[in-house]
Amino acid sequence: MNDRRSKPREFLENCLGERVEVALKGGDLVRGEFKSFDEHLNLKLEDARKTKNGPNDRKFKSLIIRGSNVVFISPPV
Amino acid sequence: MNDRRSKPREFLENCLGERVEVALKGGDLVRGEFKSFDEHLNLKLEDARKTKNGPNDRKFKSLIIRGSNVVFISPPV
Amino acid sequence: MNDRRSKPREFLENCLGERVEVALKGGDLVRGEFKSFDEHLNLKLEDARKTKNGPNDRKFKSLIIRGSNVVFISPPV
Amino acid sequence: MNDRRSKPREFLENCLGERVEVALKGGDLVRGEFKSFDEHLNLKLEDARKTKNGPNDRKFKSLIIRGSNVVFISPPV
Amino acid sequence: MNDRRSKPREFLENCLGERVEVALKGGDLVRGEFKSFDEHLNLKLEDARKTKNGPNDRKFKSLIIRGSNVVFISPPV
Amino acid sequence: MNDRRSKPREFLENCLGERVEVALKGGDLVRGEFKSFDEHLNLKLEDARKTKNGPNDRKFKSLIIRGSNVVFISPPV
Amino acid sequence: MNDRRSKPREFLENCLGERVEVALKGGDLVRGEFKSFDEHLNLKLEDARKTKNGPNDRKFKSLIIRGSNVVFISPPV
Repeated sequence: MNDRRSKPREFLENCLGERVEVALKGGDLVRGEFKSFDEHLNLKLEDARKTKNGPNDRKFKSLIIRGSNVVFISPPV
Repeated sequence: MNDRRSKPREFLENCLGERVEVALKGGDLVRGEFKSFDEHLNLKLEDARKTKNGPNDRKFKSLIIRGSNVVFISPPV
Repeated sequence: MNDRRSKPREFLENCLGERVEVALKGGDLVRGEFKSFDEHLNLKLEDARKTKNGPNDRKFKSLIIRGSNVVFISPPV
Repeated sequence: MNDRRSKPREFLENCLGERVEVALKGGDLVRGEFKSFDEHLNLKLEDARKTKNGPNDRKFKSLIIRGSNVVFISPPV
Repeated sequence: MNDRRSKPREFLENCLGERVEVALKGGDLVRGEFKSFDEHLNLKLEDARKTKNGPNDRKFKSLIIRGSNVVFISPPV
Repeated sequence: MNDRRSKPREFLENCLGERVEVALKGGDLVRGEFKSFDEHLNLKLEDARKTKNGPNDRKFKSLIIRGSNVVFISPPV
Repeated sequence: MNDRRSKPREFLENCLGERVEVALKGGDLVRGEFKSFDEHLNLKLEDARKTKNGPNDRKFKSLIIRGSNVVFISPPV
């Protein structure tokens, strides 16, 4: 029943290079290629798009998201 | 009257592998298989569904929830 | 006039095994059997009910409440 | 002009055993007998009443108030 | 151009014994005699009055204001 | 392309004695002579005016602004 | 798949001297020349413009943005 406990950080390491979805406080969703993160869960994404419960509204070549604003991080289904 | 004091973290360790319900600030509920957590109560779930006081609206293969957004964690009744 | 100063944590230790009421930020009330707590005031309750200023709406076999959401903890009158 | 600087904590020590009024974030007022406090300004009151800008609505034999919710503490006039 | 740098704490030390105005998060203003403060900017005032953008509504013999609620502190003009 | 990296604190040191504008959470703007600051970005201003998206509404001989309420600090254009 | 992991701070170092866009809590956007930052992600920008989901409304010769208000930082596309 208990699988290999990939601690959240190990899991994030494994997501590097993949496209992920990041939900922010306030409802924004950012999808992009996950490039790096640090101990505060500050995240670096590339080729990213920010949507707010609707069609894509903003594109970013790259951006740093401050960890304190992150609700969850997920590789798209 | 005082039972074995399974400290919250021991309790969470015992929930690993089980399906749990996580209530987030703002009212979202996420149900999924509890895979791991760290000292900040960042949680990793798999095969998860996020609902907002209504029918299931989002599915996730896996996701990391940032601990600061968590209100409570519970194995479903 | 000054009684034995049971520091808040000693008081909480003495409440273990009793039914307590926990008020959360946002107005939720959770009543349940108080099983354990840690240094962050993360609380573990069992046989718990969550109400929101009205009739009982949710039951939980057990749940961990994140300390940062707690407003007060009280043994019912 | 500068009186004996009773640091806030010394002042709180001197209030132990007295009835105090505690204002919480969100507007609740709790009056009760001040029994103890800790380094996080978590407070223990007994024989307490919680009001919300109106007639008394809740009584508590005893309760622990989490320090982060406290706005001010005062011995009633 | 650069005057004697009275660091904020030195300035507060110099205000002890004077009447000050304290603005709180949420818009409350408290005027009173400034008696002491600690490293968290918890403040002790005496002979204080709390107003909310209107006529004085509450008097306090003395009160401790929790530092995290303070926006600014000022000796009245 | 990369100029001398005047770290934010060095920059603030250089602003001492000048009139600055401080934007606070909630929309208030305070303009005044910048006298000092500490490691928490608590700021001391003199001869200050507080406005709220409108004509000047409050004057202060001097005031301490708690750092946690500050959004940005800028020497007026 | 995993590129050189330019940690968020390395990435920010590489952005120094470039024009960046900074999104703040509450919806403000500030564009300006990125001059420096510190360990709290306090940012110094020059020749900056602040907009609030509309035409440019404020210009700044230079400003320090307090890190806790930052949501994301991005070099414009």
